[in-house]
Amino acid sequence: MHTIPVENQPSFRVGVLGASGYSGRELCALILGHPQLTLAFATAHSQKGSTLRVKAAGRVHEVPLIGPDEADLAGADLVFAALPHGASAEWVARVIAAGTRVVDLSSDLRPGHGGVVHELPAGVPQDAPYGLPELFRDALRGARVVANPGCYATSVLVALAPLARAGLIAPGATVSIAAASGVSGAGVTPKFEYLFAEVTENYRAYGVGNSHRHLFEMRDTMSRLGADCDLLFTPHLLPVDRGILSTITVPLSRPLTDALEPFRAAYANEPFVELTTGLPALADVQHRNVVRIGAVLPTGMRQPTLLVFSAIDNLVKGAAGQAVQNANLMLGLDEAAGLMR
Amino acid sequence: MHTIPVENQPSFRVGVLGASGYSGRELCALILGHPQLTLAFATAHSQKGSTLRVKAAGRVHEVPLIGPDEADLAGADLVFAALPHGASAEWVARVIAAGTRVVDLSSDLRPGHGGVVHELPAGVPQDAPYGLPELFRDALRGARVVANPGCYATSVLVALAPLARAGLIAPGATVSIAAASGVSGAGVTPKFEYLFAEVTENYRAYGVGNSHRHLFEMRDTMSRLGADCDLLFTPHLLPVDRGILSTITVPLSRPLTDALEPFRAAYANEPFVELTTGLPALADVQHRNVVRIGAVLPTGMRQPTLLVFSAIDNLVKGAAGQAVQNANLMLGLDEAAGLMR
Amino acid sequence: MHTIPVENQPSFRVGVLGASGYSGRELCALILGHPQLTLAFATAHSQKGSTLRVKAAGRVHEVPLIGPDEADLAGADLVFAALPHGASAEWVARVIAAGTRVVDLSSDLRPGHGGVVHELPAGVPQDAPYGLPELFRDALRGARVVANPGCYATSVLVALAPLARAGLIAPGATVSIAAASGVSGAGVTPKFEYLFAEVTENYRAYGVGNSHRHLFEMRDTMSRLGADCDLLFTPHLLPVDRGILSTITVPLSRPLTDALEPFRAAYANEPFVELTTGLPALADVQHRNVVRIGAVLPTGMRQPTLLVFSAIDNLVKGAAGQAVQNANLMLGLDEAAGLMR
Amino acid sequence: MHTIPVENQPSFRVGVLGASGYSGRELCALILGHPQLTLAFATAHSQKGSTLRVKAAGRVHEVPLIGPDEADLAGADLVFAALPHGASAEWVARVIAAGTRVVDLSSDLRPGHGGVVHELPAGVPQDAPYGLPELFRDALRGARVVANPGCYATSVLVALAPLARAGLIAPGATVSIAAASGVSGAGVTPKFEYLFAEVTENYRAYGVGNSHRHLFEMRDTMSRLGADCDLLFTPHLLPVDRGILSTITVPLSRPLTDALEPFRAAYANEPFVELTTGLPALADVQHRNVVRIGAVLPTGMRQPTLLVFSAIDNLVKGAAGQAVQNANLMLGLDEAAGLMR
Repeated sequence: MHTIPVENQPSFRVGVLGASGYSGRELCALILGHPQLTLAFATAHSQKGSTLRVKAAGRVHEVPLIGPDEADLAGADLVFAALPHGASAEWVARVIAAGTRVVDLSSDLRPGHGGVVHELPAGVPQDAPYGLPELFRDALRGARVVANPGCYATSVLVALAPLARAGLIAPGATVSIAAASGVSGAGVTPKFEYLFAEVTENYRAYGVGNSHRHLFEMRDTMSRLGADCDLLFTPHLLPVDRGILSTITVPLSRPLTDALEPFRAAYANEPFVELTTGLPALADVQHRNVVRIGAVLPTGMRQPTLLVFSAIDNLVKGAAGQAVQNANLMLGLDEAAGLMR
Repeated sequence: MHTIPVENQPSFRVGVLGASGYSGRELCALILGHPQLTLAFATAHSQKGSTLRVKAAGRVHEVPLIGPDEADLAGADLVFAALPHGASAEWVARVIAAGTRVVDLSSDLRPGHGGVVHELPAGVPQDAPYGLPELFRDALRGARVVANPGCYATSVLVALAPLARAGLIAPGATVSIAAASGVSGAGVTPKFEYLFAEVTENYRAYGVGNSHRHLFEMRDTMSRLGADCDLLFTPHLLPVDRGILSTITVPLSRPLTDALEPFRAAYANEPFVELTTGLPALADVQHRNVVRIGAVLPTGMRQPTLLVFSAIDNLVKGAAGQAVQNANLMLGLDEAAGLMR
Repeated sequence: MHTIPVENQPSFRVGVLGASGYSGRELCALILGHPQLTLAFATAHSQKGSTLRVKAAGRVHEVPLIGPDEADLAGADLVFAALPHGASAEWVARVIAAGTRVVDLSSDLRPGHGGVVHELPAGVPQDAPYGLPELFRDALRGARVVANPGCYATSVLVALAPLARAGLIAPGATVSIAAASGVSGAGVTPKFEYLFAEVTENYRAYGVGNSHRHLFEMRDTMSRLGADCDLLFTPHLLPVDRGILSTITVPLSRPLTDALEPFRAAYANEPFVELTTGLPALADVQHRNVVRIGAVLPTGMRQPTLLVFSAIDNLVKGAAGQAVQNANLMLGLDEAAGLMR
Repeated sequence: MHTIPVENQPSFRVGVLGASGYSGRELCALILGHPQLTLAFATAHSQKGSTLRVKAAGRVHEVPLIGPDEADLAGADLVFAALPHGASAEWVARVIAAGTRVVDLSSDLRPGHGGVVHELPAGVPQDAPYGLPELFRDALRGARVVANPGCYATSVLVALAPLARAGLIAPGATVSIAAASGVSGAGVTPKFEYLFAEVTENYRAYGVGNSHRHLFEMRDTMSRLGADCDLLFTPHLLPVDRGILSTITVPLSRPLTDALEPFRAAYANEPFVELTTGLPALADVQHRNVVRIGAVLPTGMRQPTLLVFSAIDNLVKGAAGQAVQNANLMLGLDEAAGLMR
């Protein structure tokens, strides 16, 4: 293991707002295992006073949970806001007012705002950098506020960006995305439909007909990347804990002979994008901060078409891992620090 | 429960070739619970001499397994051939030669022959009726040889047929099918990739790029139904035992205002097609001989598009249940006999 | 299939209080598939006005849910109370006051009352027959009130009763029971610990140290059967939907040479007890109203010991199926009516 | 994270015989992530020439597999033999003959030899140190040959040793162990009973009646620790990938007032034993090299009894992790090196 030499390196104090959710827990684990970050506080409104059991660096840590109002926002170098959509923007405003950097994991600050028309609180930027380092790294270095992308959006946009930028997507065409996610994406709030007995041995679509919150940031970003296409996004619920696989049908503007070629060119030096000549599986990416991409040119098609498969761990590259990757960029650290476990 | 009055009804002796596979077991269970069928024999080449434990009608039955050469083909009224692709046609020929009706569950006799170019043995019809009763019932009544459809093909074709027949599929367009199946579809032969530890918490595509065996019967049948479209079929492996959900993107030739309308018209009187205004889930169809269909008109699309969801139990409506449904038609029984458990 | 001739047979109207729970749903399915029972009403306090989707007899039924106060208790021949422990006794009293038979699935009326010291409401018998037909059938025929046993208790007591009655349990010894249950036993109320992501790939004990509610009815019944032993009962939570397997270590009062002998003698004519010379698995009993028992005489022990394995479906023989079996006895029907699916 | 300073530390070359099994893969992952070990070779008889995909230190490594005869045994500082029981001893002899240290993960060299009466090959010690560092650390430091314990034995013996050494187990009594394991314990050889469809939603005992291979090393070690008791060991197969939970009923020689007291005294300074006042779950220990122990004093017992729960990851503390722990001791490294991931 090539561990990062940590002597004489700067160290930063970071806090987590909303530590009891699945993303919040994963954030705590990553921070506790990060050589240059220290966990300053972890808040959980409804569980304050209790402790959170976090496995990191070979040990079980008992992290005390405090109420959000008790958090010393100004005393931290950076705060991760892992709060519910809608409730997050207000806390982002407070962190900004305290003069502290913030990575927001909700959809509140993302392009399209998750489809919700709302006024952001005073002080919160309308155009916070969108935290997909593989696409927009320059805007993230040293940034003070970053909107961490949605999990589905991460898997889809990292897969589609090279095609969009190369003009490979047929103009006016429909890009059809059938994605499937593990249940941890639905969060820790107990609901009947996420009980074990309802999910095991089951599988179904949900949020269909282009109604899912993540569609908005996908559309906005695709336009920004120069693509003129319609997205049809259909998520499904898998009987697994973690992981997203997006299966994407892309009508091409011109035939390709090598399905992976656009991705090789774009991601040659990306530490967190893996290309495979096979097909990515959830087991390849679980607990890792990567997007794993495979691609196939189907036979027997009149319309030149590329089939792209993109797998991530929804809690790591789809949430907490990417948030730490963004924090590393914001704080001037090695982008991969704490993420090569 | 509206049980079928069974007095004074004809009763038939049926045999199962290949009873130790998952489809063969399910056939035995359905036959043992069927009011007018008697299990004449069950063969299993490699397990002859042992018994098969089958749960049916509230009891555990011990079915003796014999070698296929010991089976009295002429003494049966109908034989189900649940043998491996490639090996089945020869046995179908023997059953035909014995003067006995046969339902073949392999791809050997299906339209397109599963993509395999081969000579069928003498006596085996080149154009056996394709056993999708909801589409081709007339050809199945009283038939002596029937090709039972593939599981994926059943889920896809029952969903697409009303659209094809109504001219609703945009000419020349790509119909993109992202389907997901439980592991029982892969059969009982032990392989590393189907071990529990390899499948649990995992999900991946396979047979991509239009290479799956079932594509051929889908394409052939779509042409026969009058559709001029390309199919892009992408199967995935789910960490569940039973069930297939096909998520189908259909570019429309004209806009629709009611997503379910084409299906209501076509399937008003079908006992084994269920329409839902919601979304079909695997749990809705497991252990039942139905195709459950939902449909949605997505928003924000320049190309009018219909999203269709089609769920089946791959071992029931996708194999053994449909085979019994076909046998009922072939033998002049109530089509639903033994299938309303 | 030996279907029960249903012509000229009496038919009864039955209601379900608490139909939205897992036991309540299973009851509705069994009633809808029962040749001599009609579902008079199904109540669900918090979901009244909605419908419950129930799969039975090959169809999906939409059962309207009413509030419990709307139920015509007097108009039913028998009511199943599938209500939470503690809340049930009051409703049992109302059903009794309405002159209607009742099967109570809670622990309120069971021997030991689930360990809760409470006064039963007026009119509710202190000693309702305990609905384990295999042990106490005579008391159940024609009974007006029956306490349906707990799921764990059913699996354990059917396994231990023949040993207790034959004096085979070493006096004063500890009978150690390690049992494991699927998650449906925990009910439909959403709780964090029963979310899919918390249960999948996990396994743990709970309710340890003899604190589980079902222990009380086990102890009381063992005494009644003449055994003088201590029970040590340790339940575990399995990542499965349905099923209980109890692994029971029994110190014997005298050596045995045939592990199954005591069970063969006791259960020769029981339709719902299966003995196996192998080991019972959950898959053998799911969706069936049976107790499946295996037994082994371990080697290398100074103390003669019998190891007994007992498997049931917690929602069928452990709850709704047994309740219907009891109802059949109470109403003078064939004990197996509606249970041989 | 308290990373181990690695500068100026010795580094060793280690090889893996049998790298394609689940333990072998885990060994490769641990070695690739270990700061002082280098993977010299990885063999797999039937897959030589192919590569093994191993996730370690944030990356996917492609490990070339060679045939065992190609391995440079003399060029390695230590070899892990992760070969099938019965086939391993011969290879251990070859490694010893090459002058190289060896950790054998099979049962061949363990106390009792897995119940198999066999002659060990020349040069293989009859009494190789048994690699349970928490019990027998002194014999392992600097050792040249170590027999790595079985997974079940590890979970049971670490739980029972403090009771045995303190004389707390009632003389002549039966210690009853109901253990449950994930499927990875059964290995990678494809067998019908370990197919996903056979395991999901299922649970059953196996190897019952004291017939399991690991019982022999448990019995032998318990005697060595001074206990005079009979073990009754009953393993079960869980529908999970990884993890073992042993639920152990211990008749005590004298009453205890604090269930965890014996363990606190024994394991105060053990980095790889965790005590919990709650109940250990598989999720607490997966992917970690720990034994997690909980204990309860049940109420209502005439015989003073302790209920002990012991959880491990069968592939880590139950196999590869413990093997690395032993290798660290044999090579004079920090015992925890490479194990605090």
